[in-house]
Amino acid sequence: MPNNHTASTPRTEVKRIPDRARYDRDVVNAVFDEALICHVGFVVNDSPFVIPTIHARVGDVLYFHGSPASRMLRSMKKGAEVTVTATLVDAIIAARSAFHHSMRYRAAMVFGQARVVEDSEERLIALEAITNAVLPGRWSEARLPTRKEDKGALLIAVPIEEYSAKVNDGNVGDEPEDYDLPIWAGVIPVSITAGTPIPDDGLAEAIEIPESVQRFIGTH
Amino acid sequence: MPNNHTASTPRTEVKRIPDRARYDRDVVNAVFDEALICHVGFVVNDSPFVIPTIHARVGDVLYFHGSPASRMLRSMKKGAEVTVTATLVDAIIAARSAFHHSMRYRAAMVFGQARVVEDSEERLIALEAITNAVLPGRWSEARLPTRKEDKGALLIAVPIEEYSAKVNDGNVGDEPEDYDLPIWAGVIPVSITAGTPIPDDGLAEAIEIPESVQRFIGTH
Repeated sequence: MPNNHTASTPRTEVKRIPDRARYDRDVVNAVFDEALICHVGFVVNDSPFVIPTIHARVGDVLYFHGSPASRMLRSMKKGAEVTVTATLVDAIIAARSAFHHSMRYRAAMVFGQARVVEDSEERLIALEAITNAVLPGRWSEARLPTRKEDKGALLIAVPIEEYSAKVNDGNVGDEPEDYDLPIWAGVIPVSITAGTPIPDDGLAEAIEIPESVQRFIGTH
Repeated sequence: MPNNHTASTPRTEVKRIPDRARYDRDVVNAVFDEALICHVGFVVNDSPFVIPTIHARVGDVLYFHGSPASRMLRSMKKGAEVTVTATLVDAIIAARSAFHHSMRYRAAMVFGQARVVEDSEERLIALEAITNAVLPGRWSEARLPTRKEDKGALLIAVPIEEYSAKVNDGNVGDEPEDYDLPIWAGVIPVSITAGTPIPDDGLAEAIEIPESVQRFIGTH
């Protein structure tokens, strides 16, 4: 069954009272650390927007970046309220009854005020974290940002203070009278898998696939 | 490079004017049809919320369902404005420079007024579509909803009228002076892969894995 975990505030309060606040935060961290992307929600002229983006977590802060021209970031420069949600689908649950089909998933939500990262030391931390988020260790393999590139990157931070998580790690939950039906039921695991890396056109053959990419393939 | 495609309204208008509106809609359909889940954004007391959910597309309508107790659906019963975003990550793009790391992705967004599906014929269409969304054909294998189950399901519809899509299907885009660096660069494809189905506890051995599940495994 789905479990709700939350750092209780008026916004994050859910139906079921959280009994393990620490576990809660662990789930939030784990989901953001594992997810390749997240979805950032914000409000412009009373309309909700939901935009996918790459992100990184450093301690109690989520970082992400994007084009300064985008609607999202223009809105955030004013310190907009955002919700950042990351979701991992772990399995499809096929029940005997159509009604009880569901998924195993882990979702984490952070509610907060977005701020633009101005401090140059924090900007470097954020850029490194975002580069390493998907390919840990990539920062030390790649050519580092020039001053011009650093200036061109608008970096956004959202504190992980108000948050909630929802996890379904259950099994098939059919009605008692359905268990004798001659219908297959079970759990189909799903995961994100890496394919064979395709070297860039013209890359020298002597340049081997680096550790960060090897590691990504090994764990995906 | 990312391409924006949009059905132009004040809300969906983006920097680049869409040149292929038909292609646009095809991308939106394809993304929603392929994605296992979407993220629904809505506004409650000026705060944005972003909730993951299973969905289905039937022609020009997106359907999804959930617990009537949830904040999302309570808000939507009043006919709330929502944004539904689905995102597929197709590859990690590792560049020579940290700054040019990115992803191949396809994202689709639908902006609209959510309505509760009341008509019993449309409810049946929506329930079938949602059941078949992840496992096509599953509806005809499963035990169909009882009147009580049907009544217990709150079904939401959002018209696909205002929409936009953003696609990056490009390659590594490093700075000209970086191409001679001895740093690996390339594209690492990623996809969602199905594992071996785990039959439910106590399922009779004679019950074989059904076509819908076989098909899902064959295509994931």
